[in-house]
Amino acid sequence: MKNNKIKQILAASVLVSALSLTQGCTQKSVEKRTTKVKANLNGISLPENYKDWRVISASHRIDNKTMRIILGNDIAIKASRAGQTNPWPNGAILGKLVYKQKQEDNWPTAIAPNPDKFIHAEFMFKDDKRFANNGTGWGWARWLGDKQVPYGDKNDINQSCISCHTPVKGKDWVYTTPIKLP
Amino acid sequence: MKNNKIKQILAASVLVSALSLTQGCTQKSVEKRTTKVKANLNGISLPENYKDWRVISASHRIDNKTMRIILGNDIAIKASRAGQTNPWPNGAILGKLVYKQKQEDNWPTAIAPNPDKFIHAEFMFKDDKRFANNGTGWGWARWLGDKQVPYGDKNDINQSCISCHTPVKGKDWVYTTPIKLP
Repeated sequence: MKNNKIKQILAASVLVSALSLTQGCTQKSVEKRTTKVKANLNGISLPENYKDWRVISASHRIDNKTMRIILGNDIAIKASRAGQTNPWPNGAILGKLVYKQKQEDNWPTAIAPNPDKFIHAEFMFKDDKRFANNGTGWGWARWLGDKQVPYGDKNDINQSCISCHTPVKGKDWVYTTPIKLP
Repeated sequence: MKNNKIKQILAASVLVSALSLTQGCTQKSVEKRTTKVKANLNGISLPENYKDWRVISASHRIDNKTMRIILGNDIAIKASRAGQTNPWPNGAILGKLVYKQKQEDNWPTAIAPNPDKFIHAEFMFKDDKRFANNGTGWGWARWLGDKQVPYGDKNDINQSCISCHTPVKGKDWVYTTPIKLP
């Protein structure tokens, strides 16, 4: 009797451990959790180490006078350098840092991000199972300003993101074409 | 007699090891050597891992229709995030990837680097002892195109770089203002 109980407890704890590990791995492959910044309404968290990601490209939106720097996590960088971006692999995360533009003080025909006017950081998380429901296979999230307030409300969590990206549905919903390096 | 010879050999080998170590450390602090790409005429080598550096900023030169992404080695990133960039610390290396500009196919008012038109990668190496002679405390180097041919000849190794950067002498010779992150 005692032995059986011990066996049951052991079996249960092994099961719990196994589930935690699976959950942990699945989570890790998509984003690292951070506690300082609030998750968005879809439960997507800001990837905690995105500030150390490598660069995929940059762009200058002359329509709204912003400069953007596009970063990728390791999975995204590996895919972009291998030219395997249509579709992007599961686990890839793309991040975009958006700033108001500024003329360089000493070179007025050079337009750069204004370091003091950070607008938002926005992300696309590729996971064709977790995000199958929205029809894109990507999770969409944005955190606003220096306080990194999650974007979205009950009327628009990611609809405006998806609507804006619909013209590039055939490029796996991504506008950015990664730079190539020598 | 035999003992003395052994002592001499030991002493000499210790000295050689010490010198190698010193040389190794000095070199490492400025750039990692790469054998594939030729050094420039000043003996400056392409930093071998610059493709994995983190981003400092980006710029759009509307005068010559190029997009630039500015990267930094670990020392430069640390300095840029601490706001300690005037002067930049010894060991900092700044790299600039330059591409011809391209309109985004699906968003014509977004200008991005043309991945198929890489122009050059150029670098500034801060070392106020090694590069004291040119009056800037920086080593200047550029490698052209996908073949990464070192820029410069006997008539102009770095004079044109320095001349162009003279307006920002008061910013430790650097045009770029690093982005700030939340």
